Amino acid sequence: MGPMNSREKMIDATLRLLRSQGFRGTGVNQIVQESGAPKGSVYHHFPRGKGQLVIEALREAGTAVEKKITQALDSHPDVGTALRAYLEWYGREIRESDFQRGCPVANVAMDVAASEPNIRAVCQEIFGAWTALIAKRLHADGFGKPEADSLAEFVVSSLEGALVLCRAQRSTRPLQRVAKRIETMLPARNRRTHMRKSL
Amino acid sequence: MGPMNSREKMIDATLRLLRSQGFRGTGVNQIVQESGAPKGSVYHHFPRGKGQLVIEALREAGTAVEKKITQALDSHPDVGTALRAYLEWYGREIRESDFQRGCPVANVAMDVAASEPNIRAVCQEIFGAWTALIAKRLHADGFGKPEADSLAEFVVSSLEGALVLCRAQRSTRPLQRVAKRIETMLPARNRRTHMRKSL
Repeated sequence: MGPMNSREKMIDATLRLLRSQGFRGTGVNQIVQESGAPKGSVYHHFPRGKGQLVIEALREAGTAVEKKITQALDSHPDVGTALRAYLEWYGREIRESDFQRGCPVANVAMDVAASEPNIRAVCQEIFGAWTALIAKRLHADGFGKPEADSLAEFVVSSLEGALVLCRAQRSTRPLQRVAKRIETMLPARNRRTHMRKSL
Repeated sequence: MGPMNSREKMIDATLRLLRSQGFRGTGVNQIVQESGAPKGSVYHHFPRGKGQLVIEALREAGTAVEKKITQALDSHPDVGTALRAYLEWYGREIRESDFQRGCPVANVAMDVAASEPNIRAVCQEIFGAWTALIAKRLHADGFGKPEADSLAEFVVSSLEGALVLCRAQRSTRPLQRVAKRIETMLPARNRRTHMRKSL
């Protein structure tokens, strides 16, 4: 990757701020300052201001996570191990950022769900895309479609909640516990589904 | 309960605002305005200002949840059913509030973990108290201590994450799914632990 352009710098700064302090704490001035980009370029790249900047930053973060999950699913024989590997990587990222690095989508969803319907819808879309990726693989592994959807959403719920607890504890233990439990839960239920198709 | 005094009104308004918009979006002026209490009484009741108000509000919310969980555990034969009943009640609360009602502890943990060590520690303490309540009951039900602790933290993680997804989706389905899965997961593992003590 070459050096970032102004647009990329602003997206990057936006994500960093959303992760550590949420939507309402993050103003356009602080984004510009953090990014080192010239102030005038904000409204050149993001004519609709903060809302647009946040939506584009969330979409980039969402896509980056999709890539990471796909990579993990493609390089492990079963989905439980793949998710564990992904969560271990995420735990390292959080520790290296000294627990600054929360999930920007969750942070924004918590702050704006009640007041910014467009941004809320983007959060829903991103969580939905992650859930669909995992559900697709679970379905391919033999889970029925409703069970695959429900399990995948449970995985996303428990990992998002673990991130909240990690921030509160300044420890990645909640994430490690979720990773292990997901790993043991998935193949076990998978075998059961294969054995007792009628359930 | 009689009418609320100024202190109670301010705690109540603080919680409402933390639930819907997080720590950074919530200022002392807005709290006073929402509460209807006289402005002068903020620094009478909370001489250390917003930080103190938030900490006391979180502690009250934490204790209220502890009471609800204890009540649920006391009135159901097994912990899975108890947690499901609790989560169903929570889901109704969220729906009735038109999805304004997030978890104030999670909202604050996300916003301040990196910048307000005292408030972060209070969030950790509250999550820890909820986890300990559930772990104690799981241990009494026959789970080994480390497994009870780990399972209880997994329960808190998955319910906190489900609340994030509920806000993003404007639906309580993620919470219902977590409730059902916790219910089926707990007795199953319980039986296994009883059968195979050596694990």
